Amino acid sequence: MWEETVAEERLFDGRIIDVRRLTVKLPNGRTSTREVVLHPGAVAVLAEVEPGKVVLVRQFRKPCEQVLWEIPAGKLEPGEEPEHAARRELSEETGYETIGQLVPVHAFYTAPGFSNEKLHVYYTRDVKRGVEHPDGDEFVESRVVSRDEIRRMLEKGDIQDAKTLVALYWWMTRL
Amino acid sequence: MWEETVAEERLFDGRIIDVRRLTVKLPNGRTSTREVVLHPGAVAVLAEVEPGKVVLVRQFRKPCEQVLWEIPAGKLEPGEEPEHAARRELSEETGYETIGQLVPVHAFYTAPGFSNEKLHVYYTRDVKRGVEHPDGDEFVESRVVSRDEIRRMLEKGDIQDAKTLVALYWWMTRL
Repeated sequence: MWEETVAEERLFDGRIIDVRRLTVKLPNGRTSTREVVLHPGAVAVLAEVEPGKVVLVRQFRKPCEQVLWEIPAGKLEPGEEPEHAARRELSEETGYETIGQLVPVHAFYTAPGFSNEKLHVYYTRDVKRGVEHPDGDEFVESRVVSRDEIRRMLEKGDIQDAKTLVALYWWMTRL
Repeated sequence: MWEETVAEERLFDGRIIDVRRLTVKLPNGRTSTREVVLHPGAVAVLAEVEPGKVVLVRQFRKPCEQVLWEIPAGKLEPGEEPEHAARRELSEETGYETIGQLVPVHAFYTAPGFSNEKLHVYYTRDVKRGVEHPDGDEFVESRVVSRDEIRRMLEKGDIQDAKTLVALYWWMTRL
């Protein structure tokens, strides 16, 4: 169960993603091609800012052409530790500062069929209120939501983002 | 909270994905670019093939350069209904045939920061055993796993795929 790369074609080098076409040797000896989107990786934070309440953000996502409810998240900068990125993104997008440790929840591939994007999700309930300070070209609204509201949003299908579903269901199973 | 497309550059048209660079007008009037990976969408099935036991598959994922545990899944064919694709993929990858209805669990974006891939997850416990028949170039092993094993796999971080985490945690909260 392994596919050896026998050729690599550089299709696109972008600001955030790079795209490659790999020719691979299959276990049966035949060759095939794989279109691969290289991504620097990302982080997300489930912050329980009051007992039983977490902070969500609303943001327009151009690829989906719609506004999504998500937990605070962002890309890793080159060489950045995921935990550092998680603190930074929570603070930028919501104003909450993490005082203590972040608990690793899960690290997973978002779209393993075509991308290597790995997402690190953390949990914290050790925060203090500060002032949000998004990037100049980032438009994000944050809202603190209770456990009952989260359950209703999950049941109604209002959460349409993979990492947010993982984090919220993880939280629900712990309560 | 909207980004209007003012220009579109076709970077790559592939077998599975297409890549575009969009120039967008931000809410503050400035312009920015968005790299977008267009994907046909996909389906996945959580099949409870015996009470308290679900079927997982192991598969090498070239973008991640590793074998992942996942629920059975696959891309939508052009014009295909998600439910039809779900039945097809479950049967191909595991041999289980869905007899009755598939229950929609969640539909979500896997990587909304850079892709429009939408994944439809279904649940079924109404299956009969058949014979798996993967595509000639697909190498998939399936295994039936109990609820206790799933819990251990989740705790140990053995599940590293977003859709599979969503489906399994959803299942855990229902039990």
